[in-house]
Amino acid sequence: MMKAELLTIGDEILIGQIVNTNAVWMARQLNEAGIRVVHMSSVSDEKNAILNAFAEAGKRAELVLITGGLGPTRDDITKVTFCEFFNTKLILDENVLKDVEGFFTKRGKELSEVNRKQAEVPEGSRVIRNKNGTAPGMWMEKDGTIYVSMPGVPFEMKAMVTDDILPELKKRYTLPFIYHKTILTQGIGESMLAELISDWEDGLAAKKISLAYLPSPGMVRLRMSSSGSSEEELKNRVEQELLKIEPLIRKYIYGYEEYGKEQPTMEEILGNLLKERGLKLALAESCTGGYISHLITSVAGSSAYYNGGVVPYHNEFKQALLRVDASVFDTVGAVSQACVEAMAREVMVTFKATASIAVSGIAGPSGATDDKPVGTTWIAVALNDKVVSKQFTFGDNRQRNIQMTAITGMNMLRKLISGESEQ
Amino acid sequence: MMKAELLTIGDEILIGQIVNTNAVWMARQLNEAGIRVVHMSSVSDEKNAILNAFAEAGKRAELVLITGGLGPTRDDITKVTFCEFFNTKLILDENVLKDVEGFFTKRGKELSEVNRKQAEVPEGSRVIRNKNGTAPGMWMEKDGTIYVSMPGVPFEMKAMVTDDILPELKKRYTLPFIYHKTILTQGIGESMLAELISDWEDGLAAKKISLAYLPSPGMVRLRMSSSGSSEEELKNRVEQELLKIEPLIRKYIYGYEEYGKEQPTMEEILGNLLKERGLKLALAESCTGGYISHLITSVAGSSAYYNGGVVPYHNEFKQALLRVDASVFDTVGAVSQACVEAMAREVMVTFKATASIAVSGIAGPSGATDDKPVGTTWIAVALNDKVVSKQFTFGDNRQRNIQMTAITGMNMLRKLISGESEQ
Repeated sequence: MMKAELLTIGDEILIGQIVNTNAVWMARQLNEAGIRVVHMSSVSDEKNAILNAFAEAGKRAELVLITGGLGPTRDDITKVTFCEFFNTKLILDENVLKDVEGFFTKRGKELSEVNRKQAEVPEGSRVIRNKNGTAPGMWMEKDGTIYVSMPGVPFEMKAMVTDDILPELKKRYTLPFIYHKTILTQGIGESMLAELISDWEDGLAAKKISLAYLPSPGMVRLRMSSSGSSEEELKNRVEQELLKIEPLIRKYIYGYEEYGKEQPTMEEILGNLLKERGLKLALAESCTGGYISHLITSVAGSSAYYNGGVVPYHNEFKQALLRVDASVFDTVGAVSQACVEAMAREVMVTFKATASIAVSGIAGPSGATDDKPVGTTWIAVALNDKVVSKQFTFGDNRQRNIQMTAITGMNMLRKLISGESEQ
Repeated sequence: MMKAELLTIGDEILIGQIVNTNAVWMARQLNEAGIRVVHMSSVSDEKNAILNAFAEAGKRAELVLITGGLGPTRDDITKVTFCEFFNTKLILDENVLKDVEGFFTKRGKELSEVNRKQAEVPEGSRVIRNKNGTAPGMWMEKDGTIYVSMPGVPFEMKAMVTDDILPELKKRYTLPFIYHKTILTQGIGESMLAELISDWEDGLAAKKISLAYLPSPGMVRLRMSSSGSSEEELKNRVEQELLKIEPLIRKYIYGYEEYGKEQPTMEEILGNLLKERGLKLALAESCTGGYISHLITSVAGSSAYYNGGVVPYHNEFKQALLRVDASVFDTVGAVSQACVEAMAREVMVTFKATASIAVSGIAGPSGATDDKPVGTTWIAVALNDKVVSKQFTFGDNRQRNIQMTAITGMNMLRKLISGESEQ
């Protein structure tokens, strides 16, 4: 199997200023194309560090995808170092110059000297034109390894990988198949899950299937992988095992990741279900402060099933906007079954909706009372006249409590709609 | 200066299932402690890859922080490989066993055999107890390099770094000072910024100050760095330059990152300003779908200045909840000055607020019209009876449009409150 290495150049990664999301995206694309990422590295904007990284990567991999250090500013030195590694020099590429000029003209801006330099590429390189920016990609080869240097701006890099690099690799090489099946679970921790499927897991290695646990707040994804030359055989092998594991953990499963597609998020799965059933969603969020609404509307086309939401961040607005009875606050308080159920029902009226999620909790760090520690959360979900509610105690961390509440609430509504609710 | 390497172990990184946020956090902590991160690597859960990575890291760095591969599940092999590298064996640590038992007792769960194994540590290691989970940290040394293995769960790893590893390093070594000053800008791109400060930037190298451009959607952070032995001298050197650059880019500056502190977000800066002035915020979000509300409420203590928000995701709710006149939709449409100004005024009434942000735009990919392409966005901000509004054309990408709108809206309100508005 072709081995790849991802190399990120830039001090901003090493000093912790930015998260390396490019590497995640590229790894996923390569993996799905049957190319194995064996190593990822980040080095600083220093000539020797870059040259060493190029040389080391060449020993480990046949494909090295490099991002970063191609910006117009002075701290970016990838391009000259690239030339030095390949013992070549920079020359002006007329096509790229036209691209760069076009980019500026289209935006009504003037081309600066700094930007003009972006049209220079190493002599002998295969140039990858940049549809979304000014720095071109550069493809060079040395000792059996392909090196491709790309800009670090995510949507510029992504277009190059998708539209040029992967098609070119597929043209030149016969890539093997990797088959993944990922089960998405919610509401159970990693070790509990491991206990439940222990006997089944024992038999996996003999079937040449590897299993990985991928936890994130509120969720664990279980990924089975197998590689070989026959896609059909791999698929059968993995799907056979799926039939065995499903009964063991059925009530925690909220979906699957389809082979070759982006992992579906909970908000996409819920969104699809709402659309399918012709339902309209409304949200009443207190402790999540709009986070569920943000997740729902992150999905393109969500206006087809999402009517709107309200964030009543103080009790008086829960009362004024969602008609929660004042006596609720005086007796059981805002973090209570009575409060979230009232919110869930009323927000459907406000937004003429047929389904809703309402949450109220103590996200922390302050707000705890004697009987309600930080993390105490009530969630209600409603479908027409049916309301289901439940109390949770998530934990001490504000961001995590917000995430856990959002994911749990969306899954509760998904279960209610699909008839999987335990009540 | 002490050199460090960060090593992440786990297939989930290499196949692109998770983003390596641990590395970012650790890099920042080390950097601020005067330790230079020279390299970051990710390798798979394979013995030889891990052993090679340990050996290579030892050549580059005096400190190697390792995360991942310590979970209770079978795909995690860091601990046995760690033993092999140091030529030692696993022994049961009674203190750790007590921690693990306590962890399960506290949660009313039973200790499994799998979890019991987590109390085993390499003989001869300095054990770092885990306050937030079950896998302990392990500190070993070889050929002048310190290796510390930690669990990959962020809040478990973070407590170990903050409470044990950094204090221990400071006790053993005299670490130099690195002084950073980061200017936060909004509303100008990287190359335009570079042009504006070009002459000033020419003189920086002679003053031993390095400059980095750190772009993120809607913002560019400019970071000056200098290192040496006298904190006072470094500080003076950098602050002198700050006085020169400020006048060149003043209208784009929305804040600064204070030395040794987490970078303040726009929502924190705005939140502090609202609190200081005793203002109460309300939000009316259409195209951002609750994202601004989510950002505002991500800040602990935001209930002191945030009253609430509404997401009227269809015109009829803009009309019903925020009294936007029906004629607006028939004439100029929902993405218009008239619409956002009405929303900004009315949402203050709804939530008894004294400041507001209202947004309406075409986030995409659908919804564009002949005269309003995807990315067209109107933003209004209000302070008591003053309203300022502006139209923007952000771009083609939905997520980016949401982020740009949120950050721009918050900055517009910040400017209005602090008297920096251009109108």
